[in-house]
Amino acid sequence: MTTRLDLANAIRALAMDGVQKANSGHPGMPMGMADIAEVLWNDFLQHDPKDPKWFNRDRFVVSNGHGSMLLYALLHLTGYDLPIEELKNFRQLKSKTPGHPENFVTAGVETTTGPLGQGLANAVGMAIAERVLAARFNRDGYNVVDHRTFVFVGDGCLMEGISHEACSLAGVLGLGKLTVLYDDNNISIDGEVHDWFHDDTPARFEAYGWEVVRNVNGHDPHEIKIALETASRSVSKPTLICCKTVIGFGSPNKQGKESSHGSPLGDAEIALARTQLNWPHAPFEIPAEIRAGWDASSKGSERSTAWKQLLDRYVAAFPVEGAELKRRIAGELPADWAQNVDAAIAQLAAGDKPVATRKSSQNALEAIAPKLPELIGGSADLSESNCTLWKGATPSRAGNPTGNYFFYGVREFGMSAAMNGMVLHGGIIPYGGTFLVFSDYARNALRMAALMKIGTIFVFTHDSIGLGEDGPTHQAVEHVSSLRLIPNMETWRPADAFETAIAWRAAIERRNGPSAFALSRQNLPPQPRAANHAVDALKGGYVLLEPASSPQAILIATGSEVSLAVDAAKKLNAAGKAVRVVSIPCAERFLKQDAAYRESVLPAAIKARVSVEAGITMYWRGFVGDAGIAMGVDTFGESAPAPALFKHFGLTVEGVVANVEKLLA
Amino acid sequence: MTTRLDLANAIRALAMDGVQKANSGHPGMPMGMADIAEVLWNDFLQHDPKDPKWFNRDRFVVSNGHGSMLLYALLHLTGYDLPIEELKNFRQLKSKTPGHPENFVTAGVETTTGPLGQGLANAVGMAIAERVLAARFNRDGYNVVDHRTFVFVGDGCLMEGISHEACSLAGVLGLGKLTVLYDDNNISIDGEVHDWFHDDTPARFEAYGWEVVRNVNGHDPHEIKIALETASRSVSKPTLICCKTVIGFGSPNKQGKESSHGSPLGDAEIALARTQLNWPHAPFEIPAEIRAGWDASSKGSERSTAWKQLLDRYVAAFPVEGAELKRRIAGELPADWAQNVDAAIAQLAAGDKPVATRKSSQNALEAIAPKLPELIGGSADLSESNCTLWKGATPSRAGNPTGNYFFYGVREFGMSAAMNGMVLHGGIIPYGGTFLVFSDYARNALRMAALMKIGTIFVFTHDSIGLGEDGPTHQAVEHVSSLRLIPNMETWRPADAFETAIAWRAAIERRNGPSAFALSRQNLPPQPRAANHAVDALKGGYVLLEPASSPQAILIATGSEVSLAVDAAKKLNAAGKAVRVVSIPCAERFLKQDAAYRESVLPAAIKARVSVEAGITMYWRGFVGDAGIAMGVDTFGESAPAPALFKHFGLTVEGVVANVEKLLA
Repeated sequence: MTTRLDLANAIRALAMDGVQKANSGHPGMPMGMADIAEVLWNDFLQHDPKDPKWFNRDRFVVSNGHGSMLLYALLHLTGYDLPIEELKNFRQLKSKTPGHPENFVTAGVETTTGPLGQGLANAVGMAIAERVLAARFNRDGYNVVDHRTFVFVGDGCLMEGISHEACSLAGVLGLGKLTVLYDDNNISIDGEVHDWFHDDTPARFEAYGWEVVRNVNGHDPHEIKIALETASRSVSKPTLICCKTVIGFGSPNKQGKESSHGSPLGDAEIALARTQLNWPHAPFEIPAEIRAGWDASSKGSERSTAWKQLLDRYVAAFPVEGAELKRRIAGELPADWAQNVDAAIAQLAAGDKPVATRKSSQNALEAIAPKLPELIGGSADLSESNCTLWKGATPSRAGNPTGNYFFYGVREFGMSAAMNGMVLHGGIIPYGGTFLVFSDYARNALRMAALMKIGTIFVFTHDSIGLGEDGPTHQAVEHVSSLRLIPNMETWRPADAFETAIAWRAAIERRNGPSAFALSRQNLPPQPRAANHAVDALKGGYVLLEPASSPQAILIATGSEVSLAVDAAKKLNAAGKAVRVVSIPCAERFLKQDAAYRESVLPAAIKARVSVEAGITMYWRGFVGDAGIAMGVDTFGESAPAPALFKHFGLTVEGVVANVEKLLA
Repeated sequence: MTTRLDLANAIRALAMDGVQKANSGHPGMPMGMADIAEVLWNDFLQHDPKDPKWFNRDRFVVSNGHGSMLLYALLHLTGYDLPIEELKNFRQLKSKTPGHPENFVTAGVETTTGPLGQGLANAVGMAIAERVLAARFNRDGYNVVDHRTFVFVGDGCLMEGISHEACSLAGVLGLGKLTVLYDDNNISIDGEVHDWFHDDTPARFEAYGWEVVRNVNGHDPHEIKIALETASRSVSKPTLICCKTVIGFGSPNKQGKESSHGSPLGDAEIALARTQLNWPHAPFEIPAEIRAGWDASSKGSERSTAWKQLLDRYVAAFPVEGAELKRRIAGELPADWAQNVDAAIAQLAAGDKPVATRKSSQNALEAIAPKLPELIGGSADLSESNCTLWKGATPSRAGNPTGNYFFYGVREFGMSAAMNGMVLHGGIIPYGGTFLVFSDYARNALRMAALMKIGTIFVFTHDSIGLGEDGPTHQAVEHVSSLRLIPNMETWRPADAFETAIAWRAAIERRNGPSAFALSRQNLPPQPRAANHAVDALKGGYVLLEPASSPQAILIATGSEVSLAVDAAKKLNAAGKAVRVVSIPCAERFLKQDAAYRESVLPAAIKARVSVEAGITMYWRGFVGDAGIAMGVDTFGESAPAPALFKHFGLTVEGVVANVEKLLA
């Protein structure tokens, strides 16, 4: 008879063999967590291998993502589209089994993990999303959104700061459907952890308001099952299950040691482990009865079919909500989106007073959010400053999950990674704010959004020396450029209310990559608008001001420096110099346009070019070319009122005029 | 008679008035923590206003740095060189009272704070430094290094993830001389915290192994004093003192509310507060008896003088240790440093086998560390991978503080900010390792090191797609360039063992700014060396390979791509094309060289330029110019063996040759 241990050993064998064949990888975690995974997946996890995107599936996240072979083994064994050849091809170019799990490569992988702690924060976001959607859509007898989120974490995840942010937040929000299984194996890469990690982790999580199940033997299916049952009864508290495990379980000479963590065990040791585990089968060979014990295809189909029937009944009973839910699940924008956003842009463009772009961003929200209910806002404790609150925003809290706005607390990284999880869950478009300088705190979550090709929206305000008196600790200097360097990121630094509305449109419509906004604290005047701007600004860069005669020089500017460039150009044009102003609110997007469009905006023949951006100039060298001048701030800022700072750093109309004149002399 | 409350009210008045005059700033925290500060500074803190750099002073850190007016008031009142005019000039250009405390601007400010949680982590580093130095230098009856570190933190600091990393580490290290005073005022910027921050913070810190003093009335000097006495008795545990306070204490309409946090109270409210606080004095006016109650000059001089006498006796009794300690305090390198490092460089340059630069870095450590005892190493749980351990490295642990190496655990941000604190403390040059991609997790600490002008050394390994199978989550692509964008950072990406030794030399000698190393996982062949290289490589960029005839084209490369460029140049030169290879291990440093040197390396007349770096190409646009080609990786990486990846991304000798030929065609 196939035992639970036999089933778990299939994971162990695949992990040993996959890592060995790749000659690279991490066998220790899959071998240590195999029993936990077996109980969770066979007795609890609600999923459908044949429909990996089934909306109401339980979410399963491997936050200790180096244990990717555990996940690949689970997907393979339970019936996902991941043939054994892919496991043999572990970590090879173009395989579906990359070194760390990648949601955009492998069906059934919920999120991309590896950078420790972030999977845990993603899972918090998934649990948030589930609760938001459940509160919005469920009706008596129709729990159309009702699933749990399970996470595997290791010591590394729990040492990372983001685990504090995410779990403290999960505690205060009371995310009862979140269950974390802690692989308490006492080992991290540097060895036995007691000299560097001696937290009383259960007490720590209780301090966050979690339900904690202590001292579970992570190799005893019965104990694991009881713990998971306890977790499933928790309504208003997330649950941490602390599982004592042996890393590399089954490897006679390496189990319990860091040597099993991140390297192949070696053929000889694998042979010994096969004996110890009583697993006589050849590498990558899974006996039929083991396969049968794992296969979740038919059970999964039953579950997802039952839900689909429930959804059909729901649609019949609640046609409006049903249509809305189906739209949200499909990830489609409302049918009237284009119309609404066009109206919003027109409305914002009509303003004639100087407005800070952070405030314009709020105005854009006021215009678009009422008809875009998937928009879920928030801020890392800077709601007023970030202007992320709008009139229809209502707080989502432990006792009242119906809101559409989260007070994330001072947790930039946790917020950002949780938002990534919300996008990954589906049905929600999250945005969250902090000061641009603190994008540093969240930086790897921005990178992960870009890598995962998901449309998280990061609202960063106080984007330069223009924030003034708070000084260099708070003044972004390198950040706009440094965000632009992240592949697949789109960074918007709008010049006025119109461009801010364009940025929002671009970010909402962009579902295959994140957008970051760099918004001003200070007021910025509206620029004159022409009919083509609404189309061309969406291209990331366009001609904002054209001189009467053929341009001799080009001024390139972004954000708060656009008005400075325009004023300079007007002076120069009045003095008989023909100067074009190009606004580039999103350089990454502009660079993706075809050569003809880019040439029409920045003709190669015009060598006299000056760029102006209140930040590091290096990014603009390629735009201004060998003959050009890049104006900016190449040092840290200073603490002083903003007008004094712009003067101090030479970012003045006179300075711009002088540089253009120098080039034209 | 002057009461403690009168003394505390002097802080409150200065904070209200300073913020009001600046029309910007944060009165709430100084008014809330004034009583705590009064007791700490008047009854406990060992310092000397006339000698702010006295080495054995207690360190005092305001981690909630927005409360800068509290610190400026304390420095002013106790007798530091901070005249009242400076307080009137709060937040103005070139004042000594910037918006957030800046250690490089104001005597008596120990570290630059504002980015929340980092001051706390800096303080952990200071307490570590104290313990390392005490263990090294103290002798029976000669406790020449013996001081405490005090930190003020707010709710924001404790919500930040870095507080977890730093305090978990402080707990496991048993830093008994660290005392944290928590401003538990129940308010953060978004309002009353209970909906987003509901941790049982005392329990959380007990879980870290801290001594916790609960429920102290932060406005009762007696309770504060007893708590601080409790803390001073703790030998092997850091202490958290939880002080219940009222933010904006004394402002009748704004106290206890977020409205007192970050804006001037307004003249009318200040008038009411003056009445409520019974503080009838004019703005910025401090009565003589209050001044006398605060002045710590003579007490401070006595203390520092007594210590100086102790140090003299110590030097007499232990001349070798005494001289060493004085050197360390002065921040001077050993007298034989130049000689030692020259020898180390020569030794590393002599190797003829391919070596990974992470391994060359370890070899450099083996060569220089034995004679550089101030070098204190560590890694965020990647000691073997980062090659940060060397033969003489011994772990520093709770029970054994004599070591020179820290297993920081998986805490990149905490490690980095703690290292900053160690540098700020003095007597130590810390280095710490992680993978380059995880510089993201620590990014704001790198920025703070650069802003603070301190010589922290960040050892980042696995610096590109060259790490191979771990895949895009672990492959740095944008990071080298993005580090270069931080003002005052120096990022070294060495090509071989020789350049790695040069990087270490540069980083050790650079005490006014941080250095970051980007080191390869994979082996890199040694490049042919000439006599001038030891001097020119220190300039950040130099001619590595010169063709027989006058160069027609230049290949620019860094790190692992230098050998690729050299191989390509050899092929091209053999085919009759004259190609120079320029190695730029540290672009920031190269850009600081004078124009003549830069022109000698990259002559303006040579327009045919190709750069090769396995990362984002944008940074190199300015180097290759309008006519040039920048080769690199402008997308995320992939999971595969490294050789397959270099081919996949077109970074091959053939690819480089083809691009040069294209330019010369």
